[in-house]
Amino acid sequence: PRRYRITLLPGDGIGPEVVSVAKDVLSIAGALEGIEFSYSELLMGGAAIDTVGVPLPEETLAKAKESDAVLLGAIGGYKWDGNAKPLKPETGLLQLRAGLGVFANLRPASVLPQLVDSSTLKKEVAEGVDLMVIRELTGGIYFGEPRGFGTNNKGEDIGFNTEIYSAFEIDRISRVAFEVARKRRCKLCSVDKANVLEASMLWRKRVNEISSEFPDVQLSHMYVDNAAMQLIRDPRQFDTIVTNNIFGDILSDEASMLTGSIGMLPSASVSGSGPGLFEPIHGSAPDIAGQDKANPLATVLSAAMLLRYGLGEENAARRIEDAVIETLNKGFRTGDIHSSGMVLVGCKRMGEEVLKS
Amino acid sequence: PRRYRITLLPGDGIGPEVVSVAKDVLSIAGALEGIEFSYSELLMGGAAIDTVGVPLPEETLAKAKESDAVLLGAIGGYKWDGNAKPLKPETGLLQLRAGLGVFANLRPASVLPQLVDSSTLKKEVAEGVDLMVIRELTGGIYFGEPRGFGTNNKGEDIGFNTEIYSAFEIDRISRVAFEVARKRRCKLCSVDKANVLEASMLWRKRVNEISSEFPDVQLSHMYVDNAAMQLIRDPRQFDTIVTNNIFGDILSDEASMLTGSIGMLPSASVSGSGPGLFEPIHGSAPDIAGQDKANPLATVLSAAMLLRYGLGEENAARRIEDAVIETLNKGFRTGDIHSSGMVLVGCKRMGEEVLKS
Ligand SMILES: CC(C)[C@H](C(=O)O)[C@@H](O)C(=O)O
Ligand SMILES: CC(C)[C@H](C(=O)O)[C@@H](O)C(=O)O
Repeated sequence: PRRYRITLLPGDGIGPEVVSVAKDVLSIAGALEGIEFSYSELLMGGAAIDTVGVPLPEETLAKAKESDAVLLGAIGGYKWDGNAKPLKPETGLLQLRAGLGVFANLRPASVLPQLVDSSTLKKEVAEGVDLMVIRELTGGIYFGEPRGFGTNNKGEDIGFNTEIYSAFEIDRISRVAFEVARKRRCKLCSVDKANVLEASMLWRKRVNEISSEFPDVQLSHMYVDNAAMQLIRDPRQFDTIVTNNIFGDILSDEASMLTGSIGMLPSASVSGSGPGLFEPIHGSAPDIAGQDKANPLATVLSAAMLLRYGLGEENAARRIEDAVIETLNKGFRTGDIHSSGMVLVGCKRMGEEVLKS
Repeated sequence: PRRYRITLLPGDGIGPEVVSVAKDVLSIAGALEGIEFSYSELLMGGAAIDTVGVPLPEETLAKAKESDAVLLGAIGGYKWDGNAKPLKPETGLLQLRAGLGVFANLRPASVLPQLVDSSTLKKEVAEGVDLMVIRELTGGIYFGEPRGFGTNNKGEDIGFNTEIYSAFEIDRISRVAFEVARKRRCKLCSVDKANVLEASMLWRKRVNEISSEFPDVQLSHMYVDNAAMQLIRDPRQFDTIVTNNIFGDILSDEASMLTGSIGMLPSASVSGSGPGLFEPIHGSAPDIAGQDKANPLATVLSAAMLLRYGLGEENAARRIEDAVIETLNKGFRTGDIHSSGMVLVGCKRMGEEVLKS
């Protein structure tokens, strides 16, 4: 059998519950396709802060780098909200992304026919939405230097950050985006603020440049403020969107909420060479942690993305996705996506139903 | 009678049509309240580029500064899209904001009961939405230095910008926001990315600081990605939102699109001392320019904001707002907000109906 080493980072809140379900699903789907997994479970986020004093222990990063793919649950919680920056769970996540070099964050947002009513959008606007936001994840204002605090020439306190992109960074994320668009509906929309920001002007120039390598993909450009509007006005106009780190943070969350079912949405962060990082887009939901109420499907679908984008195991990925659809078709729903007439189940039971499907 | 000097900047596309209607409405509402206006019409945007070669002629800025308030139509169009930055209509707008020092941009987004069906949100989510986004307008990454292009130590092209805020800038926009919230439902939500950006950490710290001056206003904080989601999930949770220049650009556009009727939405940009700048939030719509199809109500309502926030003439402002509501109640609609059973009218006729109301 083909063997892969998977790093599991359950993290905080509902993280452990959903990762446990996804692990079981991954193992079974793999077994059916002749794949064997070995798992190492490591500390990350608040759990790591409480145990060893830092949000991303060296051992965690080292083991993650040695493995074939990383599956993360969720990190953070009220408990650590007041911590100084080096001791925030979020800092560990940024360090993990940088440490793995996963510069391309793929976030699908699709409205499943079974769940179209979960959306706050009118049915005729929401149905059929199927888009993918590709966010640059290891550059831009998240990591740009100089950054920090100081005083200006009037003696006032200041806080500052640097939005910065190199042609190299833009080119490589553009190529990922064009490749992904090519496997979808061959439409790519690059989002920037090139009417104001120099970093965006370079962005637009390089994306145009790279587009000549992908003549079969139809490229368009949109300002970020307009994109925030168009996602609400007519989300079906989009297929694949590519944008920088901070705009991607905002727009990918906006796009996911359009579906009304963020408990269903996975994500993949890949580097092109080393192991990828796969995680649900939802947070750690500390208020329902440990109550067997969480929706594990976003993490289960992240495991499917792990198979597809992390290991190139398309068949096993499909198995998982088909099982999720079948489970929904049978009427099983966790609380976040429940509607009348459907069978309300908890996190574990939902996992069992996926395994049966 | 009280006398005010108004600078009119019709600008490009549908700008002249909608400003002409708003001017008539302003004059009549003023006359009924014993106010007399004198108008100077000046060049701005693409119209100025074509006539005198720059998007904000010196004379325009000088006259605007001398006047009591500025009413702007819209700027920009395909024609100038390819221009270099100093010759873009947008650059003129940024220069005008900076020149007038209008650091506080007030953008209401309300769903009127008459127009609730225009929203792409479900009726039960959209109805009753009534929020105000207050965007810092003369600082942050829009104006921060250093900015530009260069090469990094690997010889790659780079583009960069600086997100920077001083305590002074944050304090003054916060005070405006708390004051506005106080006149509304006394709830202020400050939006930032303080889990990642130093500029946002200072932002949050100062907003907390200033909140002690406004114990009657309930303050909360939200990360920008979450705010982009919450606006879609449950927009009624918001009353007043305050945020930086770039997040405000994105979120205020998102919030306006929730209403489904951006042809109805005005904005005010004020400095606390000199003349304010009042303009509809919609663009210049070159495709329908000169066809008498534009909705003038956003500009008419901007004139109402001019009276309220620019001149302190609350009664005249109310007259205009009441007349707009009455006109809608009578069933008159321009194409952008038309629905079956309503009377479809053009830009001029809509203006006449407001004047009758
Ligand atoms: C937790 C936070 C640092 C993170 C980000 O901003 O990237 C999160 O919002 C995300 O989108 O994964
Ligand atoms: C035209 C552009 C420079 C401007 C901005 O980004 O501020 C516009 O989007 C706005 O919101 O008024």
